[in-house]
Amino acid sequence: MGTISPFAPKHLPHLPAIDGVRIATAAAGIRYPGRIDLLLATFDPGTTAAGVLTRSKTASASVDWCRARLPHGMARVLVVNSGNANAFTGKRGREAVKLTAEAAAEAVGCLEADVYIASTGVIGEPLDPGKFTGLLGDLARDAKGNGFADAARAIMTTDTFPKLATRKTDIDGVSIRINGIAKGAGMIAPDMATMLAFLFTDAAIEPAALRACLDPAVDETFNAITIDGDTSTSDTALIFATGRAVTRGSPRIAHGDDPRLASFRFALFEVMRDLAQQIVKDGEGLTKFVTVKVTGAETKEAARRIARSIANSPLVKTAIAGEDPNWGRIVMAVGKAGEAADRDRLTIWLGEILVAKDGEVAPSYSEKEGAAYMKRPEIVITVDVGVGDAAGVIWTCDLTKDYIAINADYRS
Amino acid sequence: MGTISPFAPKHLPHLPAIDGVRIATAAAGIRYPGRIDLLLATFDPGTTAAGVLTRSKTASASVDWCRARLPHGMARVLVVNSGNANAFTGKRGREAVKLTAEAAAEAVGCLEADVYIASTGVIGEPLDPGKFTGLLGDLARDAKGNGFADAARAIMTTDTFPKLATRKTDIDGVSIRINGIAKGAGMIAPDMATMLAFLFTDAAIEPAALRACLDPAVDETFNAITIDGDTSTSDTALIFATGRAVTRGSPRIAHGDDPRLASFRFALFEVMRDLAQQIVKDGEGLTKFVTVKVTGAETKEAARRIARSIANSPLVKTAIAGEDPNWGRIVMAVGKAGEAADRDRLTIWLGEILVAKDGEVAPSYSEKEGAAYMKRPEIVITVDVGVGDAAGVIWTCDLTKDYIAINADYRS
Repeated sequence: MGTISPFAPKHLPHLPAIDGVRIATAAAGIRYPGRIDLLLATFDPGTTAAGVLTRSKTASASVDWCRARLPHGMARVLVVNSGNANAFTGKRGREAVKLTAEAAAEAVGCLEADVYIASTGVIGEPLDPGKFTGLLGDLARDAKGNGFADAARAIMTTDTFPKLATRKTDIDGVSIRINGIAKGAGMIAPDMATMLAFLFTDAAIEPAALRACLDPAVDETFNAITIDGDTSTSDTALIFATGRAVTRGSPRIAHGDDPRLASFRFALFEVMRDLAQQIVKDGEGLTKFVTVKVTGAETKEAARRIARSIANSPLVKTAIAGEDPNWGRIVMAVGKAGEAADRDRLTIWLGEILVAKDGEVAPSYSEKEGAAYMKRPEIVITVDVGVGDAAGVIWTCDLTKDYIAINADYRS
Repeated sequence: MGTISPFAPKHLPHLPAIDGVRIATAAAGIRYPGRIDLLLATFDPGTTAAGVLTRSKTASASVDWCRARLPHGMARVLVVNSGNANAFTGKRGREAVKLTAEAAAEAVGCLEADVYIASTGVIGEPLDPGKFTGLLGDLARDAKGNGFADAARAIMTTDTFPKLATRKTDIDGVSIRINGIAKGAGMIAPDMATMLAFLFTDAAIEPAALRACLDPAVDETFNAITIDGDTSTSDTALIFATGRAVTRGSPRIAHGDDPRLASFRFALFEVMRDLAQQIVKDGEGLTKFVTVKVTGAETKEAARRIARSIANSPLVKTAIAGEDPNWGRIVMAVGKAGEAADRDRLTIWLGEILVAKDGEVAPSYSEKEGAAYMKRPEIVITVDVGVGDAAGVIWTCDLTKDYIAINADYRS
């Protein structure tokens, strides 16, 4: 779509190979000829999996497939296509997923239960799996350890940059690597509306423990971002742990509360936060990256709901686009969130600037100072709602004319 | 703000006098010199009142005042100012309301408990009641029966047209009149973010019965519209019933379930729906008026929640602005609403055109036909979610670059 996000990284991070993970990509012509639109990742036997999937009531056929496989918790292959979400495609959509799983299982020599599938792209158009099922055998054979940048590109729809993150950590003193790739919730082109994230590690962690690591981290990262409040039919975050670190002396962790997971959990959180923020930084038409912090709430959930109310408010988002320190709209958004907030104890900061205190504009506040702050590319809004001790953070971007231009253009 | 809504009426409806209601307006210079920004309405002794106020947790001082008066249910005077919402103004805000109430009570010769106050305009700036309290005595003296068009203009902030509606009905065969005025939730200028509606009738209805007429009608009218999902600190709908119809033989109605209220209830609903739709039709930057109907839901609340999810979705709204029959986004918005919906029984119509059926695009649907439909100024989206018998309607407008331009411009 032309313009690259002003927050696109100058250099992509280098993601090293992960023992037990091999990657291949191809241009299968799913929507556009010549575009890399197919990702195959294969995993060594014994790889565990965990995932978090969209809560949408109109979830895609691929999401349904993953949801049914995750309790089993073992994985040998991941197939992702871009260009077609295989969502709202009825019986044909379910058949397409089944055919993909059969072909992937045959290519790798595994059970269908070990196959994970994700799709992103246009909604409501039948996906023809014949375009790529024949390629999976060759891809599985040719897959290599160092393809993460290609993988991140293969899952892009109209993201303006590939999203990659990596961290090194350890379990019980044994070095562990976590890689992650993601594509944006930017919904950057009409009909493309999906956040996908795939995480890969050589850690040896049983499925239940892996879930216990992933779930709270999703809550604080991918579930703590919003571009426009819309929710995709296909949102998918999956983690695959090959367990190959056991060859270097790592224990195999069976319980989520095992203290030896502490640094792994933190590194996983960091990879996911990094990817989540990159997704926001590729929000369509954005000019500002915005952090909304709410403190003094009754519960963490309440804090996040208030933060999300601010982050999703079209009036707040357009004010930020206009570099307008329009804190009255923040008051409005706190009020509409429906959570406990003490109007007469509300405190608001823009960055370090105290804007409002005790339910009124702060005597020290100058509109000029506020306006100067709003010119920055990264804005931090902090609100204390004065009723408790809980806090929450949401990351978002502004709402610009380019968002409208991008989304109001007729699909063609 | 220049451009007048394409849906502005060619001719304003004529609102006849209502026995027991007198109106006066003035330019008090609250925000802009020379602009009519003050409305005083006085009511004959015995007038009853009912109201519905914003659920915002950061409600304005005027809203707090009305909330405390409504249980009493009697009214002699209404004071409305535009230009300043008196919201988030702390102790000074409460004092301003108190001073206004004292002055209004003295002007009319009534209890402070019989005074109703509403304010709309900028949030967070102290309102100086000294600008208008001195005018109230003269206004009360000069108030006349035929000032409804002036009243509708006095409460405008940056609405592009005054909103007026009237219906004739009867109670037990005695002719009754209902007039209504409103201002927009268009939030058309920065910081202006309020829906106000005032209803006047000569019917004789006790406060509890009046509430029983108003509440369900608000639910189906003012609570069934959305411009951008934002909620004002000051939303207020008040009804005043002078009871003067008793001089023409009308009974005084004490109970909300009195069958003699049937036609009154319907006429009141019609006045309110008319005003609610006018508010949407003055939504900022709009080019389309959109009706979203949801059927086949588990409950009426679920139907409305799904309809609101569609109506508030930026992706749906921008598609409508782009005249794009992008029904995949409607599927997405149904999915994110969180209410029961059977993806595989979902049916979608654009106007009379069957777009999707049984969870897939309808065989008879042609994109060309859909695209032609989307060029109309008034769009009806109907979705059957296939799980029950309940239905709900929400009215909204599209989301355009002009919305952004209007709201991202720096306040000046």
